[in-house]
Amino acid sequence: MFDVFAKYLQSKADFTPAEIEQIRVASVLKTLRKRHYLLQAGDIWTYNAFVTSGCLRTYSVDAKGAEHIISFAVENWWTGDQESLTSGQPSRYTIEAVEDAEVLLIKKDDFDQLRRDIPTLDGVINTIFHRSFIAAQSRIHSAISYSAEEKYREFLQKYPGFALRIPQHMIASYLGVTTETLSRIRRHLT
Amino acid sequence: MFDVFAKYLQSKADFTPAEIEQIRVASVLKTLRKRHYLLQAGDIWTYNAFVTSGCLRTYSVDAKGAEHIISFAVENWWTGDQESLTSGQPSRYTIEAVEDAEVLLIKKDDFDQLRRDIPTLDGVINTIFHRSFIAAQSRIHSAISYSAEEKYREFLQKYPGFALRIPQHMIASYLGVTTETLSRIRRHLT
Repeated sequence: MFDVFAKYLQSKADFTPAEIEQIRVASVLKTLRKRHYLLQAGDIWTYNAFVTSGCLRTYSVDAKGAEHIISFAVENWWTGDQESLTSGQPSRYTIEAVEDAEVLLIKKDDFDQLRRDIPTLDGVINTIFHRSFIAAQSRIHSAISYSAEEKYREFLQKYPGFALRIPQHMIASYLGVTTETLSRIRRHLT
Repeated sequence: MFDVFAKYLQSKADFTPAEIEQIRVASVLKTLRKRHYLLQAGDIWTYNAFVTSGCLRTYSVDAKGAEHIISFAVENWWTGDQESLTSGQPSRYTIEAVEDAEVLLIKKDDFDQLRRDIPTLDGVINTIFHRSFIAAQSRIHSAISYSAEEKYREFLQKYPGFALRIPQHMIASYLGVTTETLSRIRRHLT
């Protein structure tokens, strides 16, 4: 499974074989069955995590027991809770496998050391955070300005494969609309 | 006004006097009267911008003419459109002074060169993008999971000075709630 990660890294920048090997040694494979947890709310998140197969969701549960999904991650995406990782505080999120999944974990200290040792990796990670910020800003824009239908259309366009893999009630939760609203929109779209 | 920026930079990391001078030479001061534009939607944004005084808002206008504010920026904050800056595509946002404001502008090419020349600056900027990503994720979480009242309470707590400086209808737009809903919440809070 490390091959998926190695291929991803090589697609982003030129790494030497020795650098890839150094990253491999620090990576630990975690296999998750569907509905199993990678992180439970209240625990401190201490890894950097790269998904090599499957699909995960990051969500919070509010006082009324409703789930709110802030992100999905499929193969070749990163997951985890940067807030908890950076602050050292317990996470407010749970990360759970939507499908059977495989994730490569690198402990925070090891990852920080790799970034210091391998400037190419540091550059790739900095670029990812920059792009992630831009993507998050764009999602804020959609969340506050788009209608439920516009949000769903954008979701289909941005993530064409997701609608087939992810249950509708999870997509509704991600978009911040009710399941009933999403069902109505889907009927109108067909 | 550059002193505000120099002080900000020194608070983040140790810059040499020569480095601060190099940054100063690349910075251009832009003074904005209230309601004047820093960026108009449809134009390409080509600067990095640091606010030294006043307050600005970044917003889009939808097909019905409604404004949606995705961010405010006051003194010691950065502003601008990273999406347009990175992609080279026209911006979907307008940035306008909410109060008379002063902004330091550094052209993209000059800024990129400064980041290459001054590793300390590069480190500060990378940290800012990382933190901005975490803050944006947190705002997505609020946007999809909080009630209107919870959103307003969080806004008051995170930005205690803003409610006094920024008109209520702009705060409502930022929170993605109607002006009427915000007025009702404010009456209940007092």
